[in-house]
Amino acid sequence: LQRQHENELRALVNSLHPADIAFILESLPKEDRQMIWQLVRAEFDADVLLEVADWVRQSLIETMDRADLVAATENMDADEIADLIANLPPDVVAEVQKGLTPKERAQLIEAMGYPEDSVGGIMDFEMVRVRDDVSLEVVLRYLRRQEALPDHTDQIFVVDRTDKLLGTLSLSALLVSDPDATVRDVMSTDYLTLDPMDADAEAAQAFERYDLVSAPVIDRRGRLIGRVTIADVVDVIREDSDEQALSRAGMQEEDIFAPVVRGIRNRAPWLLLNLCTAGTAAFVASRFEDTVSHIVVLAFLMSIVAGIGGNSGNQTMTLIIRALAVGRVTSQNAWQLIKRELVVTLLVGTMGSVAAGGFAWWISGSVPVALVMMAAMIGNMLVGAMVGVMVPMVRSRLGKDPAMGSSVLLTFATDSLGFFIFLGLATIFLI
Amino acid sequence: LQRQHENELRALVNSLHPADIAFILESLPKEDRQMIWQLVRAEFDADVLLEVADWVRQSLIETMDRADLVAATENMDADEIADLIANLPPDVVAEVQKGLTPKERAQLIEAMGYPEDSVGGIMDFEMVRVRDDVSLEVVLRYLRRQEALPDHTDQIFVVDRTDKLLGTLSLSALLVSDPDATVRDVMSTDYLTLDPMDADAEAAQAFERYDLVSAPVIDRRGRLIGRVTIADVVDVIREDSDEQALSRAGMQEEDIFAPVVRGIRNRAPWLLLNLCTAGTAAFVASRFEDTVSHIVVLAFLMSIVAGIGGNSGNQTMTLIIRALAVGRVTSQNAWQLIKRELVVTLLVGTMGSVAAGGFAWWISGSVPVALVMMAAMIGNMLVGAMVGVMVPMVRSRLGKDPAMGSSVLLTFATDSLGFFIFLGLATIFLI
Repeated sequence: LQRQHENELRALVNSLHPADIAFILESLPKEDRQMIWQLVRAEFDADVLLEVADWVRQSLIETMDRADLVAATENMDADEIADLIANLPPDVVAEVQKGLTPKERAQLIEAMGYPEDSVGGIMDFEMVRVRDDVSLEVVLRYLRRQEALPDHTDQIFVVDRTDKLLGTLSLSALLVSDPDATVRDVMSTDYLTLDPMDADAEAAQAFERYDLVSAPVIDRRGRLIGRVTIADVVDVIREDSDEQALSRAGMQEEDIFAPVVRGIRNRAPWLLLNLCTAGTAAFVASRFEDTVSHIVVLAFLMSIVAGIGGNSGNQTMTLIIRALAVGRVTSQNAWQLIKRELVVTLLVGTMGSVAAGGFAWWISGSVPVALVMMAAMIGNMLVGAMVGVMVPMVRSRLGKDPAMGSSVLLTFATDSLGFFIFLGLATIFLI
Repeated sequence: LQRQHENELRALVNSLHPADIAFILESLPKEDRQMIWQLVRAEFDADVLLEVADWVRQSLIETMDRADLVAATENMDADEIADLIANLPPDVVAEVQKGLTPKERAQLIEAMGYPEDSVGGIMDFEMVRVRDDVSLEVVLRYLRRQEALPDHTDQIFVVDRTDKLLGTLSLSALLVSDPDATVRDVMSTDYLTLDPMDADAEAAQAFERYDLVSAPVIDRRGRLIGRVTIADVVDVIREDSDEQALSRAGMQEEDIFAPVVRGIRNRAPWLLLNLCTAGTAAFVASRFEDTVSHIVVLAFLMSIVAGIGGNSGNQTMTLIIRALAVGRVTSQNAWQLIKRELVVTLLVGTMGSVAAGGFAWWISGSVPVALVMMAAMIGNMLVGAMVGVMVPMVRSRLGKDPAMGSSVLLTFATDSLGFFIFLGLATIFLI
């Protein structure tokens, strides 16, 4: 019975698209994942391994024997092998390398040489090249001799004898033009090229802005070395957006079924850091112990001042980080931005402080406490706005990721200074 | 001199790609933006208007006279006019509609009928259709009679006399196959179709997973009504990721140069909501006024308990929201997820509570205070984990956006319950 059940499952799994199999594997706990992986047909192995997220791939490769791994890997393109190589056992790598042509081996070494988040790290080597002096008819006949065009071929590349890129010929132009025309007459010479050392996020911005499907990658001497396609770019956009969301919460990518130990390693540093900043803020507040012991209600109001300052600063910071990410903040408009944020915050803060003051009056029965509350809240919101604008801008100027570190600094500032302003004003005016 | 300067600027602006002009306009304060817009050559008007973000478009249209607006709009495709129509004055809309063919007018009405975030809202109507009984040679000759293929044409659609979709013919297959073959023999019948009422985010997931460049949209009766391309999908992915980042901070899209009034309207509701939750938490804490007035140091420690609980819960919530967004949480694995999060949090919390307890002991000089601190911190982190898992899951089950509302509820729970647990334990064990 178990056997029959397994056969049904096997048929079901293998009727799916490799991308769907990858998705299912990612959604399963480790044991179930490896059980299903055993059922996947061998000819899907390569595609599934390339589709799954990094943190799942390792657990799949662990269960494969050497022969299966070599079989899955040896028909991959050089750039695909490069993406996988960190997860492969050394003897499999050696075996696979033996099977490559000298050209493929050179491509593999080249692909491995680029950082993961560079254009070189996402480019592939499969593309159609033609000369500029032939007719479109010749190009059409040449294409007809291929089995298939590389995925996402929306244009073919026109190169000279030394592989220098001379132009691009879109399939659209190829199809609508007179076959007797030469490539040179029809090709476009106004196109975007990428450098293999460009950041992949920059390439993604270019693809988004100019609605590209593929773009050529050239070296310093103008020679065509690779191609980036929209499929890779979409992955870059999605990964960057995921990373940003996670880094705001102080984490990295984590398998929701990864071993508990990994979860702890991923989360503990951030919480420890927050413990330090919260401890510092508590220490600042504790310097006002006398004041608080005289007017205990201050203890309950001070966390409101700190919290609203943090929330307000977080709004400003979110806007600024986004504007920085798309390159919309310049040194010319920076001052104007700061001014605008301070004005918006001052006005929102003034309105909010009326509500907060009313609450403080209700809970304390004291008008002076309410007035201190109002002043401290506006003051701390302005602190939040300043930090929210300045810190991401300075970090981005220094070439650092503006998102993650900024939020720690923001909370630190609005907590510590919030307590300091509120309890300081209370000490001056109420004691 | 002013004049000459202006001419140079005009030449510079008009040498740019419309997408770059749109980007520059978005990065400028309103007055500069409208000044530059005046310099843009009339034939770029349509492309730039379509490229700029919604909040910029209105300010550009305001400065155009009626004739220019009609000129810019009348050559747009029906789906493009539909995207713009909310920003156009009614008399311009009437004028433009008069210039449309009956077919275009029907398309315009159709496009306007779909919600903005549906497949119907992003689809276009420009595509190549062929019959299945002709040879590829006939298709090639037909294409050669076109001026150009619609942007992002990677496949053409095979339909019958009633426009029912029978298959897709990729340009790649068209180019590599024998021209004497018929379309029917070469076309693919295994393809993904979209329904115009599908959510655009779902279409985006399909494009990502299957690496598509375009996909056909069909109605209930299987008739081809439109096409979605990767260019629109990339915009959807980017907008969704932007919206998510903003909604976490309680905001909507905001022009960093929008009038201050808009900034206030965008931010005040969220801050007011946070003021209410912080006020409630303060009220809960104030019920323990006697305890705090006996042991004042509790006032400084209680915000640490609340803050770490919130941070820890936020990590859990970020992971769960992401897993929900890609459809990786099912009712089968939900319980396992909750268990895992509780275990990870318990272990991280136990480790962190040693540091927090040490700090409490140092600042208070009292071992019992330190022990209460440790217990409260672990307890509140577990509260954060529970809320971080459960609230997004329940919200998503109820069909609500899991991101925004969840974070308010999380802060509310970890603040109020954090104070309650800490001061409650202190009242029981220390007084």
